[in-house]
Amino acid sequence: MKAVVKLGGALFGRDPDPSTIKHMASALTRFVDENNQLVLVAGGGENARTYINAARKLGAEESTCDLLGIQITRANAELLRVAFEGETAAVSARSLTRLPELVRANGVVVMGGLQPGQSTNAVATLAAEITRAKILVNATDVDGVYTEDPKKNPRAKLLRTIHVGKLLELAMAGRVFAGRYELLDPLAVKILERSRIPTRFVSLSNPENILDAIKGKDMGTLVVYD
Amino acid sequence: MKAVVKLGGALFGRDPDPSTIKHMASALTRFVDENNQLVLVAGGGENARTYINAARKLGAEESTCDLLGIQITRANAELLRVAFEGETAAVSARSLTRLPELVRANGVVVMGGLQPGQSTNAVATLAAEITRAKILVNATDVDGVYTEDPKKNPRAKLLRTIHVGKLLELAMAGRVFAGRYELLDPLAVKILERSRIPTRFVSLSNPENILDAIKGKDMGTLVVYD
Amino acid sequence: MKAVVKLGGALFGRDPDPSTIKHMASALTRFVDENNQLVLVAGGGENARTYINAARKLGAEESTCDLLGIQITRANAELLRVAFEGETAAVSARSLTRLPELVRANGVVVMGGLQPGQSTNAVATLAAEITRAKILVNATDVDGVYTEDPKKNPRAKLLRTIHVGKLLELAMAGRVFAGRYELLDPLAVKILERSRIPTRFVSLSNPENILDAIKGKDMGTLVVYD
Amino acid sequence: MKAVVKLGGALFGRDPDPSTIKHMASALTRFVDENNQLVLVAGGGENARTYINAARKLGAEESTCDLLGIQITRANAELLRVAFEGETAAVSARSLTRLPELVRANGVVVMGGLQPGQSTNAVATLAAEITRAKILVNATDVDGVYTEDPKKNPRAKLLRTIHVGKLLELAMAGRVFAGRYELLDPLAVKILERSRIPTRFVSLSNPENILDAIKGKDMGTLVVYD
Amino acid sequence: MKAVVKLGGALFGRDPDPSTIKHMASALTRFVDENNQLVLVAGGGENARTYINAARKLGAEESTCDLLGIQITRANAELLRVAFEGETAAVSARSLTRLPELVRANGVVVMGGLQPGQSTNAVATLAAEITRAKILVNATDVDGVYTEDPKKNPRAKLLRTIHVGKLLELAMAGRVFAGRYELLDPLAVKILERSRIPTRFVSLSNPENILDAIKGKDMGTLVVYD
Amino acid sequence: MKAVVKLGGALFGRDPDPSTIKHMASALTRFVDENNQLVLVAGGGENARTYINAARKLGAEESTCDLLGIQITRANAELLRVAFEGETAAVSARSLTRLPELVRANGVVVMGGLQPGQSTNAVATLAAEITRAKILVNATDVDGVYTEDPKKNPRAKLLRTIHVGKLLELAMAGRVFAGRYELLDPLAVKILERSRIPTRFVSLSNPENILDAIKGKDMGTLVVYD
Repeated sequence: MKAVVKLGGALFGRDPDPSTIKHMASALTRFVDENNQLVLVAGGGENARTYINAARKLGAEESTCDLLGIQITRANAELLRVAFEGETAAVSARSLTRLPELVRANGVVVMGGLQPGQSTNAVATLAAEITRAKILVNATDVDGVYTEDPKKNPRAKLLRTIHVGKLLELAMAGRVFAGRYELLDPLAVKILERSRIPTRFVSLSNPENILDAIKGKDMGTLVVYD
Repeated sequence: MKAVVKLGGALFGRDPDPSTIKHMASALTRFVDENNQLVLVAGGGENARTYINAARKLGAEESTCDLLGIQITRANAELLRVAFEGETAAVSARSLTRLPELVRANGVVVMGGLQPGQSTNAVATLAAEITRAKILVNATDVDGVYTEDPKKNPRAKLLRTIHVGKLLELAMAGRVFAGRYELLDPLAVKILERSRIPTRFVSLSNPENILDAIKGKDMGTLVVYD
Repeated sequence: MKAVVKLGGALFGRDPDPSTIKHMASALTRFVDENNQLVLVAGGGENARTYINAARKLGAEESTCDLLGIQITRANAELLRVAFEGETAAVSARSLTRLPELVRANGVVVMGGLQPGQSTNAVATLAAEITRAKILVNATDVDGVYTEDPKKNPRAKLLRTIHVGKLLELAMAGRVFAGRYELLDPLAVKILERSRIPTRFVSLSNPENILDAIKGKDMGTLVVYD
Repeated sequence: MKAVVKLGGALFGRDPDPSTIKHMASALTRFVDENNQLVLVAGGGENARTYINAARKLGAEESTCDLLGIQITRANAELLRVAFEGETAAVSARSLTRLPELVRANGVVVMGGLQPGQSTNAVATLAAEITRAKILVNATDVDGVYTEDPKKNPRAKLLRTIHVGKLLELAMAGRVFAGRYELLDPLAVKILERSRIPTRFVSLSNPENILDAIKGKDMGTLVVYD
Repeated sequence: MKAVVKLGGALFGRDPDPSTIKHMASALTRFVDENNQLVLVAGGGENARTYINAARKLGAEESTCDLLGIQITRANAELLRVAFEGETAAVSARSLTRLPELVRANGVVVMGGLQPGQSTNAVATLAAEITRAKILVNATDVDGVYTEDPKKNPRAKLLRTIHVGKLLELAMAGRVFAGRYELLDPLAVKILERSRIPTRFVSLSNPENILDAIKGKDMGTLVVYD
Repeated sequence: MKAVVKLGGALFGRDPDPSTIKHMASALTRFVDENNQLVLVAGGGENARTYINAARKLGAEESTCDLLGIQITRANAELLRVAFEGETAAVSARSLTRLPELVRANGVVVMGGLQPGQSTNAVATLAAEITRAKILVNATDVDGVYTEDPKKNPRAKLLRTIHVGKLLELAMAGRVFAGRYELLDPLAVKILERSRIPTRFVSLSNPENILDAIKGKDMGTLVVYD
């Protein structure tokens, strides 16, 4: 069974914490050890935003800002890869074309961003599509999709499911500046929609939950298509 | 001055017509000869759809369908490049990263698609963004954006301007299957929105019109941002 | 056991037929399932000729025409690769250098053209040479080598064997324009001659026959070296 | 005239300051505008060390730590490249092989690290060697080479010149862990020695000083070979 | 004006002689200085044959033998490139696709072999074709094409012209083992034939003669097409 | 178990001897057959020095001389790879990044040089570091490290062990010109020092000894770190 997990940039923070990353790798290894394959897509987080902001202030257009963010996501992905050493073999991928081949040959494939204009969320959806993954788990610093921003309004309610059309509506409301692809950008949602990829939003904070979500346990927010 | 022109796949048709393509290259050369730079992005058209349909029937997921379409757009772009030989130096680009460098060193740069999940319309917007083009001309088989599909309803009216928000709304309505990115897909519109790239939709049928649109003449449909 | 099969462009036609291609993949999978390896080289066919003709009319020299043809052969190869999905793992190769490594690691490797000046027939002979294939099957739209063109003269007789020297003589008679490498071009024959690769010409029309030819059944025309 | 400037990681700090970087680019542009060429090699600084430390704690061996540091130096180099936009054309290089060609065609070439085992100081010496630069300016957070660590001992004296042999001795004393290549590592000194590259150590803090050092003004510490 | 010169491996010998190579570069620089472009293709010579023979005895098939020969031709090409330093800017090319672009931007482009199955003679014909060179000069250790092997029969007569058909006949007589592509292999002749490239065989021994041949002086053996 | 063996350029000589190389491959295959992995790094030897000398006399700077030497080391590595055919699967690597992945998937990986400024000894230490090899065997034309040059002074004594500090001292004494990296250059020693890689110097002349050294037998000179 193949699964794709998008690990939000919050996992890496400003000063990547080895024990948090190691904890995640150890939990996910248990899935791989059961003869499964895993693609992990690392977000950029605060370090990406730091570089993007500096570039933007230097007058860079947004595509170049994206390229800077991509470099940081790749450093984050490399930290993940290192964390699997000693657990299971992990390799890096830098293109979608060879991804199915790499997934067949290795237990874990890590990726960062690929191209300007694409968030790492979009990369994760494309990775799930091209590898025909059974599930895409999108792990961020909130535990699912809420009716409002849970950080601003404590009465915001967690949605158990969300229709892809509603997700698109939310995605359209934000502007896609580099480093600000919140939740899912429109491209990511359109990929979900076209391939109806089983997708669940969960929290980054507990690796066990991510493992459970991969295995199909009902938690966080599930995307529904009908 | 730098301009990006997206040339819709209809220019190439099922059986690419050398005189039509040559006619286009000759007209656009006049712009380049005035010490300007041009990025041309070729669409896929019927040949791309033919390969995409075959792949889809063979069970390919959409990302692989995109990859097949990209191969045909590159062949179309290569035909364009050939058409400039004898007129002016033209080169091909296969990534955005080196595009600004290539544009500085050559009068004409041709491109096809780049990656799954991106239409050639999105490539054209990213190319305009990263090269800081003064104008993006999107030439298709209709002469602008209509209130309705002009091929179906003869009373459809051509819009002189369209707000980026409305464009996004139209883009969201369609599903982004490979080879079916009509008008502009959501990613393309989001790139326009974030960088407010001056953009005009015109007809492919008359190269002189495209030349005029590059030079700022009011025609077709202009995207407005405020 | 390793085998190389050149699948003539006629397999793909103007409008690639998914069921024909799938039928071929299913038959060839039976060979791979018996713990064998297969390199498939796709020809260009009518779509390649369409692009080559357009390029030539636009004034391209022959090397660039070859490059356009190569892009179409790669799209054809990709269709083949897709057809194997669900049957067995297939990957694409774009160079000879890594081919032996890819063949060892995967059941099926698909290729299109590689470089100007080389037909896909030549690619197939080089692939057979560098992988030390036990057999090269060249499947085209006629069922072997005839004394005359069987499409023009119904009394043309199928040769059971042909000496490599005679093959070379036939190859020399034609001019090697892009898209017109009929039967075998001189480079292809010279590669056969230097490595004495067991080679058989058969018809594309029946996948079972190709499978039989791979397994050594006497049919079509066999190249002899002494 | 060609010059190579190594800009220490301290220029970029933890939170890259756009105005500091812009200030540097504006000053260096004045050199380029006088028909000169410049290769700039960006160090990693605190962000590189942050990633390297995380990787090391995750159990990575030193070569992988180097690779992480290299990714950050490339992000730093990209910020530099952006800072030149609007001033003069700048491109990135990722190999030494094409460097002489890129330097000939562009005013400014930026680089980060290249390979495990090489500090960016070593990259700068190799870049100076292969482009036959007239001067290599190594700008760090101290204003030259001191008799002792000036941050620890206020009575440390700045050396006006240092013999390459003495430099080597200092280089050998430290251990070459990733992110800890202080002053110059042994490889860098050995390259200086074999090609006797005119080299000066100056302070990063004032771009005007770096400009003066490029132009040959006596300041900081000069490496002597006899 | 563009010219392609194939410099036979004999120029480099077993122990490449710097003064011979420098002498050649100095002479050819005079052509480039008159605002012309030059592609130089280096043969492999004795060092290539040494490696090829070792590989063949180790059991390598011919494609791998070709690959070894190609590595030596690239080292020879690099020596040529170095010889132009201080004279004029020279760059290396490793593919035909980018060759026209490199030729436009640089006075001298050097190449070695490209792919198994192709001699450097074939590379030179393809380079002449894709760059639309005005002349291809093939310089070897004999001063043109003879009626017989002039090293074996002193009464062999130098042909002033040779028809491409006759050249093909001679080419077909030899077997194309790696390192043994004498005169022109069949692929090279077929490329000449299809593009009717003006081609002259001259002696390597006098750089002035090669320069004269580039400029159109009647010497050695000219290929005729009608 | 993973091992890295540096095979000095003397193995290949001026005229590579197939039986010597085959003998080496056959012996090392016995190690691989016991379910181990082997990285072999080939030195340049006399052929590398021949090209380097020619380049240096043509005025090349040292980085370009290094590049020429690297091309020859890659040809030597390719001969090694060929020698393993028929014994076990061997592949080539051209970067450190993918090396761990290649080592996991193949019994034998061969390498030549990688970059200017690095000897193949340094490549071998980096390869040992990044693959976490259990042992690095450095096989040259002397049977270990001597108190003096054993070719010049017959009373020179073989050291059973050498401290890494002493090794560094010896390395610093020589100048690092291309093709003259004797014993270990400073970069190589620094890599040993930072990762404390178990390293033994032995003689190239007897493949059985190299096999014994890989397996831990006490012979030649062992590097000690405390």
